[in-house]
Amino acid sequence: MRQSGLLNDVTCSLTVDKSPHNAFLPLLVAFLILAFAAVFWTSLPYIRRCRSTQRLMDLVCCQGSQHSMESVRTTLQNEETTNELSMEQNKSKSTRLKSLDTFRGFSLTVMVFVNYGGGGYWFFEHAPWNGLTVADLVMPWFVFIIGTSVVLAFSSMHKKGVPRLQLLRKLSWRTIVLMLIGFCFINYSPRDGLLSWSWLRIPGVLQRLGFTYFVLALMQTFSPHREIPLKEHHWWNPIQDVLLYWPEWLFVALLEIMWLCITFFMPVPNCPTGYLGAGGIGDDGLYSNCTGGAAAYIDRWLLGDKIYWHPSCKALYHTTQPFEPEGVLGTINSIVMGFFGMQAGKILLFFREKNRSILTRFLAWALILGISAAILSKCTRDEGFIPVNKNLWSLSYVTCMGFMSFVLLGVMYFVVDIKKWWGGQPFIYPGLNSIFVYVGHSLLGFYFPFSWEMRFQDSHWEKLFQNLWGTALWVFIAYLLYRKRFFLKI
Amino acid sequence: MRQSGLLNDVTCSLTVDKSPHNAFLPLLVAFLILAFAAVFWTSLPYIRRCRSTQRLMDLVCCQGSQHSMESVRTTLQNEETTNELSMEQNKSKSTRLKSLDTFRGFSLTVMVFVNYGGGGYWFFEHAPWNGLTVADLVMPWFVFIIGTSVVLAFSSMHKKGVPRLQLLRKLSWRTIVLMLIGFCFINYSPRDGLLSWSWLRIPGVLQRLGFTYFVLALMQTFSPHREIPLKEHHWWNPIQDVLLYWPEWLFVALLEIMWLCITFFMPVPNCPTGYLGAGGIGDDGLYSNCTGGAAAYIDRWLLGDKIYWHPSCKALYHTTQPFEPEGVLGTINSIVMGFFGMQAGKILLFFREKNRSILTRFLAWALILGISAAILSKCTRDEGFIPVNKNLWSLSYVTCMGFMSFVLLGVMYFVVDIKKWWGGQPFIYPGLNSIFVYVGHSLLGFYFPFSWEMRFQDSHWEKLFQNLWGTALWVFIAYLLYRKRFFLKI
Repeated sequence: MRQSGLLNDVTCSLTVDKSPHNAFLPLLVAFLILAFAAVFWTSLPYIRRCRSTQRLMDLVCCQGSQHSMESVRTTLQNEETTNELSMEQNKSKSTRLKSLDTFRGFSLTVMVFVNYGGGGYWFFEHAPWNGLTVADLVMPWFVFIIGTSVVLAFSSMHKKGVPRLQLLRKLSWRTIVLMLIGFCFINYSPRDGLLSWSWLRIPGVLQRLGFTYFVLALMQTFSPHREIPLKEHHWWNPIQDVLLYWPEWLFVALLEIMWLCITFFMPVPNCPTGYLGAGGIGDDGLYSNCTGGAAAYIDRWLLGDKIYWHPSCKALYHTTQPFEPEGVLGTINSIVMGFFGMQAGKILLFFREKNRSILTRFLAWALILGISAAILSKCTRDEGFIPVNKNLWSLSYVTCMGFMSFVLLGVMYFVVDIKKWWGGQPFIYPGLNSIFVYVGHSLLGFYFPFSWEMRFQDSHWEKLFQNLWGTALWVFIAYLLYRKRFFLKI
Repeated sequence: MRQSGLLNDVTCSLTVDKSPHNAFLPLLVAFLILAFAAVFWTSLPYIRRCRSTQRLMDLVCCQGSQHSMESVRTTLQNEETTNELSMEQNKSKSTRLKSLDTFRGFSLTVMVFVNYGGGGYWFFEHAPWNGLTVADLVMPWFVFIIGTSVVLAFSSMHKKGVPRLQLLRKLSWRTIVLMLIGFCFINYSPRDGLLSWSWLRIPGVLQRLGFTYFVLALMQTFSPHREIPLKEHHWWNPIQDVLLYWPEWLFVALLEIMWLCITFFMPVPNCPTGYLGAGGIGDDGLYSNCTGGAAAYIDRWLLGDKIYWHPSCKALYHTTQPFEPEGVLGTINSIVMGFFGMQAGKILLFFREKNRSILTRFLAWALILGISAAILSKCTRDEGFIPVNKNLWSLSYVTCMGFMSFVLLGVMYFVVDIKKWWGGQPFIYPGLNSIFVYVGHSLLGFYFPFSWEMRFQDSHWEKLFQNLWGTALWVFIAYLLYRKRFFLKI
């Protein structure tokens, strides 16, 4: 459509020489196998309860080991696991918010699958510029979860009487470790050769997550601990979880206004002010060097060329400029996203035991954010006031992801924590060891048995199998770690 | 010398255009810095004892954190660390054999340094074929240590009443994990691309270590637990630690006879029987395809071309055949090497508290093995009955390494465990987390901050600095893990 001016004289006619394989068939098969595995896993306890089966299994398996496995599991369930980030504040009860671990693990599992290739399907790859694919969903979910975890963990530590100085030391240490891991160990594939000044990249996923965590945790540390005075009745009772935190809301609102002002009003040399496009051959090639507008300009100004040189828009839009998807300006909206997560955490804390209130509020927030996203993007990909864009972390993207996060966490909270219909398996295992799985899957992605040279390059079969297999292996490793009660904390 | 037949008509005259940098200067500087660091580290407690300095440090450092660090250290020292492999058998005392941990850590540190490049010096690289460099020392030390650890650990578990079936399960599990780590995660550098059938390598360092461990542990499990009847006096009292274990000695002697017979009497097509050379252009190019003789033939027969294609002899001898330095035949001698280590463990157990007896026996074994090595190799590199050769793990290589291991362990036992002049720092830290450091250094070797693109390719300075820095980082990481009381067990 966009290039119609250039292609006026060209006519195309398509003929099909050979009818192609159905590319979605592998996906269907994989889904059926996974569904079968889930059903099998769920029904395993019932099968084992049958006496005849039990006797057979006793014959086949080593009874001793089976017994010890069971006892480990029981011990584990009785005892508090140690990931402080998502520990619920009510110390006497000491129950974990399982839905949050499940949500974290679910995001992580999708992230691993997507990073390993997503079976080669386009909707498991990042959108070239505007738009939303499965790959674009994961990181903001993670940011949201960080926000929720920060509230729960810091509130719990506050209740335990941990002094503020120690909180500060803890959050600084975590930030430094996250950023160092991101900068040193994750960013560079050994395929590119040794780290060199010529292709250094300073920002990155873990760097942004670390900085976002830093800001959110700092906010939580310095905000006075507030309890809702439940007895009193005011007109603002239903929204007191918001009103009580007005200074934080003000701060975040100012941040967002800053993002809007910089994005839309900062002049960028040789580019239209407020440009949000991909540049390159997009927009009839008028702004070919303007990829990302103000966001890119700020990154280039602050970081020079030590940023990402292979943005997702490169292939489709033939862009020549580097663009940093984890850039400085987008980090503002990442903080806003995390703040939504903090709001979820505050709701969970304030209205604990009142599940109806929690779910109502989650629904309300989902509606507010979803409607905002719909208005901002006009429910289109490219024509909205602010298009949904993962590279820019645009406001509509953040509100849209906030909507999804509230819905997902709400549903999981209902299913896992209220109704206890589901224990969160298998996602809860990676969710309890997210740093380990994230670092591990990044480092070992190219190694056997996570990947190997494929034989059938022309079909999705082997690629999908390889990626699902690699992902399943990480879930299984996380399960083994859980069984060994190993939880990597930083 | 070897190629003199080909080079008769060529005369060379050397002129020096520019006097070169002294390549050993960086080594001297590095040594001085390390010595200074050691002295500084040792004297740190004395410096801190001075009141005035203490007050200054209180001002500079955060007192709270310092206190908590101290308390962690005290806790740690009071309490038994958990690496079962080298736990001393005397359960009531529960003191670890620190010298063994130190020896393990020392080997590991040298191994990391050598694997990271050894500053580019030839003596930190593997010998092309016959001969001995620093790089060739490390692996047999490790095998020796495995042997000693197996005796101490299994004897301790036997005393605790662990049933034999559980021991079998434990040692099988460890073997499988070691081999899987070696096969899957360590062997392939992502630089070579994804794992492919076209360049698979089945054997490897961890595979051999794992298999050696398996055989040694099996031997220890099935050998009856024997105590020396200390009261009785026989002529064979001084060597009863050997005589009591005659079945094991017989087994190992048969293994070694097997190695000798196969190596020297097995006919290899198109090659002289008993050939031990490198082939290629060595031996006037007469046996160019005979690299490694019978050892290589067996590997090719069993494993096809799924072996190592870049042996250390390739550059100098222009060999064209693959040769597996961790091949099947050499594993026999690896088991023999580990058996020497087991003997050290038995000496430590039998004559516990009688340090004089222990040291005498260590010395005797060192002398026996050293003299054997001297006779077998005729104290030359190439002219002995059996030349010292790491690629083949020749008998003279094994006895020579046995000699060094007994001397090193004896000296460390004297300094660390008897006299307590030295606590084994810093080597004891990697020694307590050897699997972690080994896997870590292999996976992260190409990543910043362990390596980076060098600017001064033509000097040893930066290379030496980079390799020492990478090694020091791993020692430091091991120290941090020790402080956090994290000990990776498999």
